[in-house]
Amino acid sequence: MVRAAVLTEQGKPMQVTDITLPAPGPGRVKVKVVAAGVCHSDLSLSNGTLRQPIPAVLGHEGAGIVLEVGEGVTNVAPGDHVLLNWAPPCRECWFCGEGEPWLCERAADAAEIPHAELADGTALYPGLGCGAFAEETIVPARGAVKIPDDIPLEQAAVLGCAVLTGAGAVFNTAAVRPGQSVVVVGVGGVGLSVLQAAKIAGAGPIIAVDTSEAKRDLALAQGATDFIVSDDTTAKAVRKLTEGRGADIAFECVGHPAAIRTAWSSSRRGGHLVVVGVGSAKAKVEFSALELYYFGRKVSGCVFGSIDPDVDVPRLLDLVRSGQLDVSSLVTSTTGLDGIEGAFEDMRSGRGARTLVRL
Amino acid sequence: MVRAAVLTEQGKPMQVTDITLPAPGPGRVKVKVVAAGVCHSDLSLSNGTLRQPIPAVLGHEGAGIVLEVGEGVTNVAPGDHVLLNWAPPCRECWFCGEGEPWLCERAADAAEIPHAELADGTALYPGLGCGAFAEETIVPARGAVKIPDDIPLEQAAVLGCAVLTGAGAVFNTAAVRPGQSVVVVGVGGVGLSVLQAAKIAGAGPIIAVDTSEAKRDLALAQGATDFIVSDDTTAKAVRKLTEGRGADIAFECVGHPAAIRTAWSSSRRGGHLVVVGVGSAKAKVEFSALELYYFGRKVSGCVFGSIDPDVDVPRLLDLVRSGQLDVSSLVTSTTGLDGIEGAFEDMRSGRGARTLVRL
Repeated sequence: MVRAAVLTEQGKPMQVTDITLPAPGPGRVKVKVVAAGVCHSDLSLSNGTLRQPIPAVLGHEGAGIVLEVGEGVTNVAPGDHVLLNWAPPCRECWFCGEGEPWLCERAADAAEIPHAELADGTALYPGLGCGAFAEETIVPARGAVKIPDDIPLEQAAVLGCAVLTGAGAVFNTAAVRPGQSVVVVGVGGVGLSVLQAAKIAGAGPIIAVDTSEAKRDLALAQGATDFIVSDDTTAKAVRKLTEGRGADIAFECVGHPAAIRTAWSSSRRGGHLVVVGVGSAKAKVEFSALELYYFGRKVSGCVFGSIDPDVDVPRLLDLVRSGQLDVSSLVTSTTGLDGIEGAFEDMRSGRGARTLVRL
Repeated sequence: MVRAAVLTEQGKPMQVTDITLPAPGPGRVKVKVVAAGVCHSDLSLSNGTLRQPIPAVLGHEGAGIVLEVGEGVTNVAPGDHVLLNWAPPCRECWFCGEGEPWLCERAADAAEIPHAELADGTALYPGLGCGAFAEETIVPARGAVKIPDDIPLEQAAVLGCAVLTGAGAVFNTAAVRPGQSVVVVGVGGVGLSVLQAAKIAGAGPIIAVDTSEAKRDLALAQGATDFIVSDDTTAKAVRKLTEGRGADIAFECVGHPAAIRTAWSSSRRGGHLVVVGVGSAKAKVEFSALELYYFGRKVSGCVFGSIDPDVDVPRLLDLVRSGQLDVSSLVTSTTGLDGIEGAFEDMRSGRGARTLVRL
C-alpha cells in the first residue's frame, strides 16, 4: 500500500489515503514517484472542465525511479530515472506517421485504464494516464521516458509538462526567430517556460502580461523585458513597445476568452497567435469574419508544445544542463501530498507559478 | 471623356456616365481598360461592408494597355500590356522589408486619391485604387504590372485578383503538398482558382463545397474530385472522404461565419484553415477556448494570396501558358459596362462564378 491523493467526486477536495497497485502488467511500468508538479490542467480535470474518469489519482507532471517492469518492456529497467509523459505517442497511428506525434490517436489511452485500487477494491483511474499524486504509479512503458541520473528529478517532473509545453510552443509551434517580438499572456508555469524559451531563441522585446502585478518580478527574472498588468489597454501598450505594430508572436497561456482576445489584439498584422492555454468547451471566443481575413494573422492551437519526446526531451535536458533553461525557478512553492488542496487553491486565486509535490 | 460605371451612393445601383481623366501626374499611369472582372469585393465596397470613399468608379480586377505615363515612370511605357494590382507593395515599409508585401502599409493609398471627375467637376475615387469599371483609368505606376503581349487581356484581368488570390492561398499561404486532402468552401471565382491550384499542387481528394447544386459541374470540371451541397452534415461528409479525419487543408472562400465554421469543422486535427473570403466586421464567428487549443489546428487569414507580384505574376503566367491554369473557364459570363448591375445581382444570388466586363 502507498499513499495517494484521490479524487472521488468532481469539484470536491481530494483525500489522501492508501491505495494498492498490482505488479505491472505486460508493457507497463511501476514507478516510485519522487516529485510531481501541480498543473492547471489538474484543476480542470478535478472540476470537470476536462474529461476525467473517477475515482482518480491526478498528477501528470511527474518524475521518479522505475521499481518494476512488466513483460516485454525494453525501454526502461528498474533503477532508471524517468519522467512521465502524459501523451506518449504510439508511433503507429496516422498522426505519428505524419510527424505529428503530439496528436497521436492513442496518446490518451492510458487514462481510461484503471491502474490501482482503493482499500475497498474500488478501481482507480490515473489522471491523464499518469497518476503522479501518489508515492507509486503504473504507466505504459511509452509513458516512462528515461533520463540521465544527473538531472534532478524535481526538475525533470516540471520539465515533463510545463517546460515541454512552453518551450515546445516557442521552438516548435511558433519557431521563434532571433529579433522577433513576443508577448506572453499568462505567467504561470507554462508562461514562464515560454518566457525562458523566447529568451533562448533570441526574441526581443519579450513582453509578459498577467492580471496580477505579483507576477512582475517572476516574469522579469525569467526572460521578460517588459511586464504589463492586463486591462483593456493591453494591446495598445504592447503596440507601444513594438514600434506601433504589435508583437510578431503572441502566446496565450491561460485558456480564457479574454486572454485569447488580448493575445490576438496584441499581435501584429501578419502575426502569429499560439493558443497554449487549455480552455473550456463552454467558454466562447468571438472573432469577426473580417478580422479573421483582414489582418493576415495565423492562430495555432498548440497541443503539448507540438513536441516529439524523442527529439525534444534530450534537447531540453541539454538546455537545462547548460544552465540556459532554469527549471527550478519555475517552482514557486513545494509541499507534500497533504498540501495539494492548498496548491489547487493557489491556482484558483492566481498565486505563484508552480507548486511541486515531493513524495 | 470616357464612359464609366459610377457609384454615387452606398447600396444604390451604379450609373454609367461620362467621366474625365486628367493627364497622369508624376509616378502615375493612364491605362485603357480592356477587361475587368466583377469580384465579390466590389459588391462589399458598393454596399459599405468594406470601406470605400465615394463617389467612386469600382472595379479592381482589370487589365489593359498603357496610354500615357507621368513623370518618373520607368516600369511601363505607352503600348505595354498591363494588369492592375489593387494592392501594389511600396517596397519601403516594414512589411515589405519583412517579406510580407501583401500587408504593405501603403498598398491601399491609391484608393484615397481622386483620379477622375464627373462632368460637373465632382472628384471620383478609384475603387481599391484601380477604377477598372471604366474605359480608362489612372493608377500608380506600381499598380500597373507589365505582362507579355501573348496573354489575352481578358485572362490577365481575372488573374489580377481572383487567380492571384486563390492560387496564392494554395501555393503560398497553405503551401499545399502533393497528396494532401483539400476542402474548398465556396465555389466562386476565387474558389475555382483554389480548386485549379490544388490540382496543380497534386492535392487529393479535392472536395468542393457550395450552397448551390448548380456549382457542381463547374467545380468538378476545374479540379474538384468531389462536390458537396453544404448543410449541417458537411463536415461529416468531408470526413467520410478523408479516411475519417477531415481535410488537411480547408479553404474558406466566402467570408461568412457559417462557411468559416463549416471549413473549420471539415479540417482534420492539426489541419489548416485558410480564410480567403472577405467577411464583414459585423459578422461574428464563435469558437470555444477549448477547440482553439485542443484540435491543434492552424487558422490563417489570407490577404491577397500572400503574394509578391514580382514573383507570383510571372509564375502564374507560366502556368497559364502551359495550360495548367485555365483562367478563361473561370469566366461564366461576359457583359458590357451596362451589364454591371446584372453581374452584381448574379453575385447576390450566387449564380455563376465570374462575370467579365469588356470595355
